[in-house]
Amino acid sequence: MTESIIINEVGLRDGLQNQPLFVATADKLRLAEALIAAGVRYIEAASFVHPRAVPQMADGAELSALLPQRSHLHYMALVPNLKGYERARAAGYKKVAVVLASTDTFNLKNIKMTRHEAELACREVIAAARRDGIVVRAYISGACACPYDGPTRVNVVQALSERMLEAGATEISISDTIGAGNPRQIENILTPLVKAHGAEHYNLHLHDTRGQALAMAWAGIECGVRNFDASIGGLGGCPFAPGASGNVATEDLVYMLNEAGFDTGIDWKALRPAVALAEELTGQQLGGRVFQWMRSQELRACAPVPEQA
Amino acid sequence: MTESIIINEVGLRDGLQNQPLFVATADKLRLAEALIAAGVRYIEAASFVHPRAVPQMADGAELSALLPQRSHLHYMALVPNLKGYERARAAGYKKVAVVLASTDTFNLKNIKMTRHEAELACREVIAAARRDGIVVRAYISGACACPYDGPTRVNVVQALSERMLEAGATEISISDTIGAGNPRQIENILTPLVKAHGAEHYNLHLHDTRGQALAMAWAGIECGVRNFDASIGGLGGCPFAPGASGNVATEDLVYMLNEAGFDTGIDWKALRPAVALAEELTGQQLGGRVFQWMRSQELRACAPVPEQA
Repeated sequence: MTESIIINEVGLRDGLQNQPLFVATADKLRLAEALIAAGVRYIEAASFVHPRAVPQMADGAELSALLPQRSHLHYMALVPNLKGYERARAAGYKKVAVVLASTDTFNLKNIKMTRHEAELACREVIAAARRDGIVVRAYISGACACPYDGPTRVNVVQALSERMLEAGATEISISDTIGAGNPRQIENILTPLVKAHGAEHYNLHLHDTRGQALAMAWAGIECGVRNFDASIGGLGGCPFAPGASGNVATEDLVYMLNEAGFDTGIDWKALRPAVALAEELTGQQLGGRVFQWMRSQELRACAPVPEQA
Repeated sequence: MTESIIINEVGLRDGLQNQPLFVATADKLRLAEALIAAGVRYIEAASFVHPRAVPQMADGAELSALLPQRSHLHYMALVPNLKGYERARAAGYKKVAVVLASTDTFNLKNIKMTRHEAELACREVIAAARRDGIVVRAYISGACACPYDGPTRVNVVQALSERMLEAGATEISISDTIGAGNPRQIENILTPLVKAHGAEHYNLHLHDTRGQALAMAWAGIECGVRNFDASIGGLGGCPFAPGASGNVATEDLVYMLNEAGFDTGIDWKALRPAVALAEELTGQQLGGRVFQWMRSQELRACAPVPEQA
């Protein structure tokens, strides 16, 4: 019996929110459809933040109304506060995500709140969602390092995770927002949490900035985690800085997990049209390592030369 | 107490043997010196194959005579047969590597021998080396897949590894020559071998063709392996096929292992001049993910924009 893994596609939210341009609602829908065609079933589709703060996400409600609704498709929206939560609920979301950054500095820069204030805002959303029967994920962002304060201590991440779970979030996303972590750190964070609460409560959200995301995902697998975020083509990061990567590319993660014998429900080769569309919509060259490899095979400028070892 | 890891640099052999041009002996020496300056202590420096077969390696003896000899520096040479072994021994090597590919087809294409014949040739070298007090590594190449016959069965790799160890090789290099493996496969191959003989007999030689090498290396770490091959800048593969990658980049592997708390003896940032030199010598753009990231930071065209999750 093949073990299933949840791949939660975040390209439409974490990917597109970092683009300098606004991608039209109809185009976002096309991208969602291309992803679904390849077998993607879990999508973080929108962020209900203030449109002045993140104009790229201003069409959350419009997009949500258009997304295909089928029993096997699961959508989630990011909400920064109660107001955003109400908009997401009105848009029909059955699952929302709150964000708690690991340090005061990171929270202040992102949402002008201290970590304590941010935690209270998260708790407010979680309480409201519980009343409404809506499921909540809590992102612990900057879980490996804060972009301002450097490496994050493991016990800080663990304490924030515990508090969000206790508050009523059912899914904790350990988020290496700036791709600064390593696989041992993932093990150190997860081992006691999984032992205490079970692996089913944890998700890994890994950015591939320094190429460590797959190794960290594998460390998560070893800890029992079966729920991962990924972004089509590695969409995300800053489009002006080559190599400043977004989330781990969906196709690379799916390739690894499928090859390792897990059932992701996704055909990685069938993701290629979604990568092409994301490239067209953002004007960026995208695509994980498996598609770089496929392109090189297709060039065939060089017949495969076996090596000795 | 920090645990040590052996990083065996193979750029001078596995990297340069795949280049269309001959790199001058003096330049190879400069590359070795740049690597040593960053803390590299284990180098596969040459291959004593017939110069007609691999002209890039024709200067093995000349290069070997020039390599810096200090007590902490360890060199190895690849030898395809007894004749190559004698040349390596004459050149002063205390450690040689033989190659046994996992399938008949791969052995026939590489060295015009069946797998059985190749095994006999390896045994001949091992026996001679034991008499001479020279240590032998045995590469099991195509350990994850054969470029001609597809995926390699785990029990085949295990049986070949067992036979080479029994014949007197003290180090077995599980070699994913075409970068077609996955971390679960590494676990499946290594778990019984390590249990039977101890992790100290095993090395992982991983190509990063599909971006899986670091995750596979981490799977090896979990199995207890503390000995890895890597190639500066990811040198290797076919220079005409972008994305057809060589070995895992030394800087990426060292970054991961250092960050995870191991002692590799190497400062990854100090490898940058070696990457630059390898680029100059081969005319290729090289460099692992950590240097892509450093370059993007240096461009500073984009101020760091923290993300919400």
